[in-house]
Amino acid sequence: LPYAIAAAEGRKVAVIMVGLPARGKSYIGRRVARYMGWRGYATMLFNVGNYRRQLYGAEQAYDFFSPTNEQAAAARLHCAEVALQDMLAWFQSEATIKIGVFDATNSSRKRRAWIKTKCEEAGVSVLFLESVCTDNAIIESNVRATKLKSPDYANRDPEDAVVDFRKRIAEYEKVYETVGEAEEQALSYIQLINAGRRTVVNNVFGYTRSIIVSFLLNLRLRQRPIYLSRHGQSEYNAVERIGGDSALTPKGIEYAKLLSKYVQEVIIPENPGQSLQVWTSTLRRTKQTAEYIGREFQEWRALDEIEAGEMNGMTYEEIKEKYPKDYEERKKSKLTYRYPRGESYQDLILRLDPVVLELERGGDSPVLIIAHQGVCRVILAYFAEKSQVECPRLEVPLHNVIKLIPNAYGCDVEVNPLGENLCDVQSH
Amino acid sequence: LPYAIAAAEGRKVAVIMVGLPARGKSYIGRRVARYMGWRGYATMLFNVGNYRRQLYGAEQAYDFFSPTNEQAAAARLHCAEVALQDMLAWFQSEATIKIGVFDATNSSRKRRAWIKTKCEEAGVSVLFLESVCTDNAIIESNVRATKLKSPDYANRDPEDAVVDFRKRIAEYEKVYETVGEAEEQALSYIQLINAGRRTVVNNVFGYTRSIIVSFLLNLRLRQRPIYLSRHGQSEYNAVERIGGDSALTPKGIEYAKLLSKYVQEVIIPENPGQSLQVWTSTLRRTKQTAEYIGREFQEWRALDEIEAGEMNGMTYEEIKEKYPKDYEERKKSKLTYRYPRGESYQDLILRLDPVVLELERGGDSPVLIIAHQGVCRVILAYFAEKSQVECPRLEVPLHNVIKLIPNAYGCDVEVNPLGENLCDVQSH
Ligand SMILES: Nc1ncnc2c1ncn2[C@@H]1O[C@H](COP(=O)(O)OP(=O)(O)OP(=O)(O)O)[C@@H](O)[C@H]1O
Ligand SMILES: Nc1ncnc2c1ncn2[C@@H]1O[C@H](COP(=O)(O)OP(=O)(O)OP(=O)(O)O)[C@@H](O)[C@H]1O
Ligand SMILES: [Mg+2]
Ligand SMILES: [Mg+2]
Repeated sequence: LPYAIAAAEGRKVAVIMVGLPARGKSYIGRRVARYMGWRGYATMLFNVGNYRRQLYGAEQAYDFFSPTNEQAAAARLHCAEVALQDMLAWFQSEATIKIGVFDATNSSRKRRAWIKTKCEEAGVSVLFLESVCTDNAIIESNVRATKLKSPDYANRDPEDAVVDFRKRIAEYEKVYETVGEAEEQALSYIQLINAGRRTVVNNVFGYTRSIIVSFLLNLRLRQRPIYLSRHGQSEYNAVERIGGDSALTPKGIEYAKLLSKYVQEVIIPENPGQSLQVWTSTLRRTKQTAEYIGREFQEWRALDEIEAGEMNGMTYEEIKEKYPKDYEERKKSKLTYRYPRGESYQDLILRLDPVVLELERGGDSPVLIIAHQGVCRVILAYFAEKSQVECPRLEVPLHNVIKLIPNAYGCDVEVNPLGENLCDVQSH
Repeated sequence: LPYAIAAAEGRKVAVIMVGLPARGKSYIGRRVARYMGWRGYATMLFNVGNYRRQLYGAEQAYDFFSPTNEQAAAARLHCAEVALQDMLAWFQSEATIKIGVFDATNSSRKRRAWIKTKCEEAGVSVLFLESVCTDNAIIESNVRATKLKSPDYANRDPEDAVVDFRKRIAEYEKVYETVGEAEEQALSYIQLINAGRRTVVNNVFGYTRSIIVSFLLNLRLRQRPIYLSRHGQSEYNAVERIGGDSALTPKGIEYAKLLSKYVQEVIIPENPGQSLQVWTSTLRRTKQTAEYIGREFQEWRALDEIEAGEMNGMTYEEIKEKYPKDYEERKKSKLTYRYPRGESYQDLILRLDPVVLELERGGDSPVLIIAHQGVCRVILAYFAEKSQVECPRLEVPLHNVIKLIPNAYGCDVEVNPLGENLCDVQSH
């Protein structure tokens, strides 16, 4: 992480969500946490709704959310207090750079002022992140897509649940104050209005915050399906050499044909009416794998395999022999180990950042990425919410397609082997 | 440029500046053009003020800008028409991806609607970019810093000129309508409010526009001084080999000491009260050069030299012999030529994008960058507004410090040789 972070802007940032129910606060908050976690920040989400369900039970009807129901209001305030306490305790625990996301409606200026004071007293700076949505079609679709599955409505008739949830929204609307008016004009905040149609960025400075803004500007209402594959077996794979720019083996070509068939028989039918994009690296083995699909594909240098520098073209056995110290170091810390004149996994994460933003930005159309083990691990780590430390050891075997299928808050991961037993090369 | 550009968003974007006089429209417009040009877009700026000066003479007093002065208003409209015609003709001329910047106050909705219609009829999509500034201190300082030097006031007493310019602003204020109200709500526009304190992004989608937004979010009122140096002579330089990770020669060490002296005797005194940042690449020769300065420095992998791939460690003579075709290709098209398994200058530009944004974002504190020939060329090309084609041939000799000193609209470039005749290695 650049030096800039050490500066005045603070090493502890609380992102305070704001918005009426069903405005995508949890969706956005989780995405910010996922992205910043992938970028190497320690992140944690504190969802006040989960505290409510734990402390007062799920299945509360809409009048629990009425501002005039004093007893319930006290209960809800108590949930916020406990959640905030937990967040501030988490911020104290270690010295790393941290982003906490405080996920609740936080719908009144008074509540926000209280949160800000509490955070600042604890040495945590705040960034408010409001989602405003006036498009009824979006709200209605959000309610049906996510709220019916919420534990709050586990045993309710769906139509009943929708009616109750609409009433819950109405209760919040009675006291809702949008961010940035009156005494809030100098706050550091971001407003997302109608799912990306309009964005307001107010008093947002510093490196960490500017990363969050860039991410949010690329975030869309829905994520697209992504199909992740390594190239078919290459000549270097077959002799267990790393790096290089070798061609496919006959087995690799067989995989390329199976992948082409998979595109026709699975990917296209799964995404009716959408046009598939195919992305490869600039290396021969991925382009050769893509050729059999018979569509135009986009070469990205950013998708090239982790650069092994001086070790390029060697086997792991040779590395162990000739560079025993490097071999041990890499084993100990695969994330930060940088090949001499080459890259580390951390370097790779930074290099893949534009790819991840483009995947977020691109809207609905599905993408098939044909890349390399290290690259696939880093992309998978992002979508599957794996930590940086786990990333270099994720399983991404040859001759499999990893499907990343979006769901309401993230995505499901499915691994599909094509032509099993085509080969088994060890992962490193 | 990524495929995404080919999509519906259009390959011709007109950025229409909006704002009262002295709001930084020309500053911002020129920066956008410079940045997008560096990124590889064909860009051109059309400043209506220049048309006015050419067609009706400079030195017009404030009442020329009064909305009730019908004759002058007709003259000013005529300038806008001619400038717009020129811009639309420029858009037609070639098939590349183009960004035109239309720099004028464009202060009424009627004027903007007219521009939009004209552009769209010509197949050009529009993005409005308004600078709003309510901070009188900024406006006053802008007037004094830039308007007094304008040809409009070439022969005027400064205090007189300031008074006249304030009156000119007042004339525009009479008819000024901010972007985005009434029928303009669905426009694609960006509003920069009080120099970065608040930014509104409305209906801005697509790859090209999102690059412009990211850039603007990093743009500051003032640019910082930048000192650019290559490392001291390395062992590979001495034998004319490219790439590698060699150490400094005795001459290189001598330069490192001279550079350290230059920091103490020139850079520090030139920037009183500021703390200097020193950035290097991750390669030995830049870090060794920085060590003599005796300050902490920041290593950036993005500052590493252009990767020569398979040619790494060779001399140009050897390349010419062993890879005559590559040698010729590179000579013919140094910008796009990519070393086998290495990089092209175009790759380098993309890699250096985060560095350039960080240089823009960082505020006032000066930076000394110790890097490599290719890297320095790319950074210099950005600040000195050189085209992508010129970039790979810019002169950046060893043992010189290139000063980039900000002025009102860009920066001055000054080359300072340290310890002349320390060595002369040929550039490639
Ligand atoms: N910017 C946005 N505006 C509106 N809806 C969005 C936005 N981004 C994502 N969504 C949608 O919001 C839905 C998820 O709603 P979510 O549960 O996150 O709302 P919430 O604001 O957390 O509601 P609650 O207050 O009940 O917790 C998803 O279906 C997602 O597509
Ligand atoms: N966002 C901004 N808001 C206000 N001033 C700015 C902004 N960005 C840069 N500036 C300052 O504006 C000054 C340059 O003013 P500039 O000539 O660009 O104004 P202008 O709007 O083009 O005026 P005119 O209408 O007379 O052409 C520079 O000193 C620069 O520091
Ligand atoms: Mg929620
Ligand atoms: Mg101007």
